[in-house]
Amino acid sequence: MTNQSQPDKTPRPPVEVLAWSGDAMAGRLRLLDQTLLPNEVAYIECRDAQRVHDAIARLAVRGAPAIGVAAAYGMVLAGQVLPNTHDFHNGVEAAAEYLEGARPTAVNLAWAARRILARAQRTLSDDYNYLRAALLDEAKKIHAEDVALCLAIGHHALPLVQRCRGVLTHCNAGALATAGVGTATAGIYLAHAAGHAFTVYCDETRPLLQGARLTAWELAQAGVDAVLITDSMAAQVLREGRVQMVIVGADRIAANGDTANKIGTYGLAIAAARHGVPFYVAAPYSTFDLALPTGESIPIEQRAADEITEGFGRRTAPVNIRTYNPAFDVTPAGLITALITDRGVIEPVNEVNVRNVVARASRP
Amino acid sequence: MTNQSQPDKTPRPPVEVLAWSGDAMAGRLRLLDQTLLPNEVAYIECRDAQRVHDAIARLAVRGAPAIGVAAAYGMVLAGQVLPNTHDFHNGVEAAAEYLEGARPTAVNLAWAARRILARAQRTLSDDYNYLRAALLDEAKKIHAEDVALCLAIGHHALPLVQRCRGVLTHCNAGALATAGVGTATAGIYLAHAAGHAFTVYCDETRPLLQGARLTAWELAQAGVDAVLITDSMAAQVLREGRVQMVIVGADRIAANGDTANKIGTYGLAIAAARHGVPFYVAAPYSTFDLALPTGESIPIEQRAADEITEGFGRRTAPVNIRTYNPAFDVTPAGLITALITDRGVIEPVNEVNVRNVVARASRP
Repeated sequence: MTNQSQPDKTPRPPVEVLAWSGDAMAGRLRLLDQTLLPNEVAYIECRDAQRVHDAIARLAVRGAPAIGVAAAYGMVLAGQVLPNTHDFHNGVEAAAEYLEGARPTAVNLAWAARRILARAQRTLSDDYNYLRAALLDEAKKIHAEDVALCLAIGHHALPLVQRCRGVLTHCNAGALATAGVGTATAGIYLAHAAGHAFTVYCDETRPLLQGARLTAWELAQAGVDAVLITDSMAAQVLREGRVQMVIVGADRIAANGDTANKIGTYGLAIAAARHGVPFYVAAPYSTFDLALPTGESIPIEQRAADEITEGFGRRTAPVNIRTYNPAFDVTPAGLITALITDRGVIEPVNEVNVRNVVARASRP
Repeated sequence: MTNQSQPDKTPRPPVEVLAWSGDAMAGRLRLLDQTLLPNEVAYIECRDAQRVHDAIARLAVRGAPAIGVAAAYGMVLAGQVLPNTHDFHNGVEAAAEYLEGARPTAVNLAWAARRILARAQRTLSDDYNYLRAALLDEAKKIHAEDVALCLAIGHHALPLVQRCRGVLTHCNAGALATAGVGTATAGIYLAHAAGHAFTVYCDETRPLLQGARLTAWELAQAGVDAVLITDSMAAQVLREGRVQMVIVGADRIAANGDTANKIGTYGLAIAAARHGVPFYVAAPYSTFDLALPTGESIPIEQRAADEITEGFGRRTAPVNIRTYNPAFDVTPAGLITALITDRGVIEPVNEVNVRNVVARASRP
């Protein structure tokens, strides 16, 4: 997705979130079961679309980009068992609808399934094996594009990371959320591959502990020096001068650069600003929603009380206590030093710069 | 400890952390077992000093003021079984040393045990039952003084709380940490008793969850409208205008007002400042360490990794992950709107005002 040269030492993702093996007719998808992390590394062999659907539904695979790639391969698996008749195309369409239902609000999921469907629809052939090969070809393209998007983000973040002895991140915008080296973590993996020595502080990210369970784990897998802290320790880590940058991912970025991301991001940005530590958001072009003028109109999802009161499989709060559990917060553009995208770095963060970079053609 | 008039509606503490029943010769101490909260309300009947020692050691009773009062009654229990001979005084001295060993760094513990010992030493009598009664009298004085200290703090905080629809607090500087209505919670209980309707947001306070397990519980017991949030949600709660003040306790306050308190307090103070929400620290005069010019010289205790990685009885992070686990942080005086003490309100927070108020005679 970029025509810029990649750094010499291109790291492989530290973990194989998903892997296709075999051909279009009898191949299969292997998914890392993220629900078992960090205690167990186990894989799910998907030989049909239902396994993929279920893996997405129960969060065994998570992160918008990874879900999209998994769904694309799920379409290929669906095609394997469709009849070699004119019902093939109806079957592909039904499979897209089925897979989209796994997590109704995941934008990449519908986007990827529909892209495979469109490829099927424009492939004019009576050779059903040729059709199946076309689906796999499109799925591999989606996969490769995601890997390239991550690397492009990492390429832009690399020089920023190389200036730091310490980096702080929140939640998981890592390799586990993509098919590649992640978004917020991309520059971290590239810097590590280039031999730069530094420490990454990971917020544990209550209530669902994505930082503790996922980010700390994948960084350690890659040999990055990772240090786990609770969210409440980030301000102290900043105060002690342990980190020279903060980098996080994004769920949605408005036209002016206001960024919705995991709850806790906003407080972290405030603390970084107080200490004069640059605060970066890393995200692919697809995370931008230019129809939203500002973050004011981004709705904040409220989630169930038991994530807080029983978030560890054990009750840690009084029965019937009221909770307030917003899943996201919005960090205003003014607190963000730069937005690091696959298409370039947006700095300073304002609507003109956002539109200039995001509208930039990503292919030659 | 104060000569100011108390508000008309003086609330009882919402929970009975400790209660003495009976006389000096055969009475006993009942302690709430805080290790079982919030899932179970159970009490420990202490008929000897060893039970008190063990309760302090395993944190069944916690919070500097509550520990002090418990130790004082522990001295009374020790006196019950001492011989009616000239060895009585040696026995009281040995009991003080024994109880002090329960938690070597707890200042109030040694202070209370030594105060009972001093009372024994200055009580010139051969009537051992008279001596035992003197010990109980002194323990009850320590107990009553702690109750009065809390109420005096609450009296000063009351008008501040009464201006608010929402109050945010961190950790537990509550009734459970004292023999009375707590320090940070004192104004909350007084306002509630006075009929003021408001909501208290409680940070859960990772890693040890004192906010979730203790503060949310005791507020709910008292009928205060309590809402539990994760620490990472506080900035969003502030942004949404849900609270008009933040109030926390303190572990140690330097002469210039810099305040060491539970990790996360500093980040909360930064977020409050950004939103123009007053940030208050409530503490008795004994928390001030006027020998420390600033908070720079307050040592920050580092604690074990498993508080973060297995803080809920279940491993939630990779094996062998490095952690950084400071127990406290220091909030600079410049971020504190006022210090609310039993001797008055220190505002603005600076060394001259601290010394003026803390040095003020607390009794007529």
